[in-house]
Amino acid sequence: MTAPKALLFDVFGTVVDWRTSVAAAVSSALPELQDPYSFADRWRSLYQPSMEEVRSGSREFVRLDELHRESLRTVLSEQDIELPDAAVDDLNLAWHRLDPWPDSVDGITRLKEHFVVAPLSNGNISLLLDMAKNAGIPWDAILGAEPVRAYKPTPDAYLRTADILGLRPDECMMVAAHNSDLDAARNCGFRTAFVCRPSEHGPQQNSDVRPESDWSYSVESITELATALNC
Amino acid sequence: MTAPKALLFDVFGTVVDWRTSVAAAVSSALPELQDPYSFADRWRSLYQPSMEEVRSGSREFVRLDELHRESLRTVLSEQDIELPDAAVDDLNLAWHRLDPWPDSVDGITRLKEHFVVAPLSNGNISLLLDMAKNAGIPWDAILGAEPVRAYKPTPDAYLRTADILGLRPDECMMVAAHNSDLDAARNCGFRTAFVCRPSEHGPQQNSDVRPESDWSYSVESITELATALNC
Repeated sequence: MTAPKALLFDVFGTVVDWRTSVAAAVSSALPELQDPYSFADRWRSLYQPSMEEVRSGSREFVRLDELHRESLRTVLSEQDIELPDAAVDDLNLAWHRLDPWPDSVDGITRLKEHFVVAPLSNGNISLLLDMAKNAGIPWDAILGAEPVRAYKPTPDAYLRTADILGLRPDECMMVAAHNSDLDAARNCGFRTAFVCRPSEHGPQQNSDVRPESDWSYSVESITELATALNC
Repeated sequence: MTAPKALLFDVFGTVVDWRTSVAAAVSSALPELQDPYSFADRWRSLYQPSMEEVRSGSREFVRLDELHRESLRTVLSEQDIELPDAAVDDLNLAWHRLDPWPDSVDGITRLKEHFVVAPLSNGNISLLLDMAKNAGIPWDAILGAEPVRAYKPTPDAYLRTADILGLRPDECMMVAAHNSDLDAARNCGFRTAFVCRPSEHGPQQNSDVRPESDWSYSVESITELATALNC
């Protein structure tokens, strides 16, 4: 097996700890709220359904910022919380300022010396760019759903990204904390690296706590992946 | 006037010295050629016409790599040079390996501390990514014609790029060595910075040797722009 040329990263959960960061932003915006983690979990639970309309073709591609805003309004409405539009927009930007896991920046920096490193996330470009700038993630390019106008796990999301890079699918490796993402990528011909993030969903997490297939690599951190790839 | 948030760079001629780099690649691929600079100039002369079909709408968007390859075949044919397909593809990659002007990496690195820095080039993503990786240009994102599927100076190229960034046009500043590029950007509401590159076209250059309007900034180098913007 020859080495891959590009490592393409899932971001929410794999590179950054969305739950802690979003809960902190919720707590700051809504100080009277009892459980900001539950709010963050409910907001995130609308993530996959919100993309489904686009994936099914019943809705034209819209950026994740827009879907996040719609989901936020739903959660606020469920909890009878009224917020001015500007405050909704500001809280929605919590997703632009997510903190990385402790190993992410070091690992990606090491991998960048030998590979193209880029997000292949459902996040839109400005979301990923703001996050990278804030956290110091040294991406070579910002790829993902927006440039290809397709949400993972649609095959187009993976295949068009490889095409943009001028690479064959087997020259690309998907790096993700989610077995389903890797499964879709492997079906497109990508190599795969599973990074275990057992606290992405908090202390009670019971999904994606282990690799569920023989992925090309299965590691506990991005720095461990860098070591495994001789970086 | 408040500060801009993003600096968007023309690349060919503004950030990199395409003529010297392409002539060197031509000389290496075609050692029997008398004047590799003339070959490079002729290749580049087909650049604007090649995009015109896409800009006019008579041809669907194709990446610059493809247009560069078609233009290269034209120049080879004009000079009765036969090259195998693989050698044509390899020579075409000269545009992925252009060397920056001496001030470019330092200037962009300084500007990156205070602004979003990204190319707004007609080059495709993999061309710009390979170039950045090769030369150490620390872009925050790779933008330009491919993500927006529009070639400069079409207004969509500028306006859709600002939209991707979530910015108003007046929060964006176009940085270019070409007065026409700045004119088109200003017509879209962008701020403008002219970087004089009087040897882009070699010692006989007589176009773009000075700012032809009252651009927001007119400088001799990207480091001078960084200083002017207090970076």
